[in-house]
Amino acid sequence: MKKVLILGSTGSIGVNTLNVIRNFPDRFSAAALTVNTRIDLLEPQIYEFKPRVVVVKDEKFAADLRRKLTIKCEVLSGIEGLISVAANLDYDILLGAMVGFAGLAPTLEAIKRGKRIALANKETLVVGGEIVTELCKTHNAEIIPVDSEHSAIYQCLVGENTKFVNKIILTASGGPFLHLNNEELKNVTVKDALNHPTWKMGNKITIDSASMMNKGLEVIEAHWLFGLSKEKIEVLIHPQSIIHSMVEFVDGSVKAQMGLPDMKLPIQYALGYPERLESSFPKTPLPKMNTLNLFEPDMEKFECLRLAYEVLETGGTAPCVLNAANEVAVDRFLNGKIKFSYIPFLINKALEKIENHKSPDIETIFECDKLTRELASQL
Amino acid sequence: MKKVLILGSTGSIGVNTLNVIRNFPDRFSAAALTVNTRIDLLEPQIYEFKPRVVVVKDEKFAADLRRKLTIKCEVLSGIEGLISVAANLDYDILLGAMVGFAGLAPTLEAIKRGKRIALANKETLVVGGEIVTELCKTHNAEIIPVDSEHSAIYQCLVGENTKFVNKIILTASGGPFLHLNNEELKNVTVKDALNHPTWKMGNKITIDSASMMNKGLEVIEAHWLFGLSKEKIEVLIHPQSIIHSMVEFVDGSVKAQMGLPDMKLPIQYALGYPERLESSFPKTPLPKMNTLNLFEPDMEKFECLRLAYEVLETGGTAPCVLNAANEVAVDRFLNGKIKFSYIPFLINKALEKIENHKSPDIETIFECDKLTRELASQL
Repeated sequence: MKKVLILGSTGSIGVNTLNVIRNFPDRFSAAALTVNTRIDLLEPQIYEFKPRVVVVKDEKFAADLRRKLTIKCEVLSGIEGLISVAANLDYDILLGAMVGFAGLAPTLEAIKRGKRIALANKETLVVGGEIVTELCKTHNAEIIPVDSEHSAIYQCLVGENTKFVNKIILTASGGPFLHLNNEELKNVTVKDALNHPTWKMGNKITIDSASMMNKGLEVIEAHWLFGLSKEKIEVLIHPQSIIHSMVEFVDGSVKAQMGLPDMKLPIQYALGYPERLESSFPKTPLPKMNTLNLFEPDMEKFECLRLAYEVLETGGTAPCVLNAANEVAVDRFLNGKIKFSYIPFLINKALEKIENHKSPDIETIFECDKLTRELASQL
Repeated sequence: MKKVLILGSTGSIGVNTLNVIRNFPDRFSAAALTVNTRIDLLEPQIYEFKPRVVVVKDEKFAADLRRKLTIKCEVLSGIEGLISVAANLDYDILLGAMVGFAGLAPTLEAIKRGKRIALANKETLVVGGEIVTELCKTHNAEIIPVDSEHSAIYQCLVGENTKFVNKIILTASGGPFLHLNNEELKNVTVKDALNHPTWKMGNKITIDSASMMNKGLEVIEAHWLFGLSKEKIEVLIHPQSIIHSMVEFVDGSVKAQMGLPDMKLPIQYALGYPERLESSFPKTPLPKMNTLNLFEPDMEKFECLRLAYEVLETGGTAPCVLNAANEVAVDRFLNGKIKFSYIPFLINKALEKIENHKSPDIETIFECDKLTRELASQL
């Protein structure tokens, strides 16, 4: 029985992780659940999965919850609560599914304990890639990616030597704006941007998909996960979202991993690895997949993707600035404060204004993140 | 330096193997070359690759060659020559690329010596699957397939546990007659059948592709190579020949191996495994692959494919009968003696008339092969 600590149990990945645990009650249990503010969704999860601890963002919510619960479950709050659980609880796998930057600190605690990290939180590697990968080596902790693209690459690399990788190819659906021109892109609404053609996900990541910043963050994440330079990481548009990603080897052979767009598959893989667990969800209808398309993305139109490649080249705290500015910009766009096309403009401004620090320590990263958020809120 | 014994050096696979050896002179050398009758093609190969021994079919050809050669090279002849070389020569890898049934005996000798078998000769497993796989276990010999489809499956299974395989999917181009109906199929000419849309191969295998017997033989081969029941081996038509084959796992994940249709890739993989050798030949132009199609084959139209599934179910000497009858039928078709649609008819007749033997020993197989050829020549 593997005990799972789920950071972000009420988001799309968190809920799917609990679906996997529900499907395999003899293999997995939820050791702890953490949420931001969705106490209403957390409560039924506590009654069903009976975690030993839960963590919520504010002490006020925590106090409310303690009063209401008629089941034995410790309720903690805030970043201290998160760190305490990650550092002290008895668990086997940390499933990092929090949105944004907040997943970094507890993830570092889990790494120090040599736990398996099933990582859906892109920002952990995007902003803390250097520190995280070093720490993983030191403490012999393994990261198994949960993003469908990185899970695909991971699966294609099983049994292969990464020194024979010529390049990896991350596929992207292209999002809802694939066929708009630059002019049309300026006037898209929040509703348009949230209307993703193939994947059902949370709001932040759906907007990131529309701007292709999601793919940009994945490029940076892939760099750290697989130890590849940016020249060896390519993005191709694949509107059907069936081929989740590919690896091209030096001999010219290409391996691809495919499946229906369902996050349960990479989650289950990351929890169960090296075993593959028999799933009851629908198999890929290969004989009906009569068309699969692949083509290059328009880097001028998708400025966020271009910016991500740039900060990967720059290194240091630049990816942290990109990520923090993007989080603020997406939030402002979702709240109707800025236009969609202002997202990359705002990120670019932040990158220009904030000084870069090479090989930053964790404090520098936290500070840079804070500084960027303050600046980006005012741009 | 790995020394390669090439059975069938003047055929399509043999010539491509020598291309690979030419590209990697520091890694591979040709220890011995064997041919059937193409002495004219063998001679320049001897001067370029300087094998210690060559074997030709007839002693008459051997004597001619001995007289002509101005370079030190032993010349043997006949099946005794083949067996003697496989059993006694100093080599590391046997590359089995002979057409038809003649590759079995020398391959068994190589297996007894625990050599690596790079196997392009389908019949070795089709007719001798049970004996060959048992012998491989006993002598710790490894078979690495050279057929592009089986190489694809092998590559997809590297690092995976076969107990988690739900099914494998062999892709087939569908050959030149994919879009003909049953009536049109009756009147195709030898020239039509030799006009393969995507692969350049020898005559026998090109006709087998047109009838889809090639895929049928591959289904049987896959059964022995990967230890899978016929229910777990599927065939899908993929006219572009880019996806070479796929594996679906129990969790729903599908892995595919892709590449341009070039036999140098699987040959190089089988010789170099577990290393992947950097190739100079063109990489797969993924961004230009804007359409990949997959659909189910018409089992009524492609009777040879259906017959192959049937003999796999029957077992014993039935695959031997299928294979021998097919060889004779294809030969008769190529010589203008029978119509294309008579190929499956003739095979079916042979299967009806020849008694099946369960778990045959090697002598029984040879006898069954001989009997079938006699019968099939007269049907």
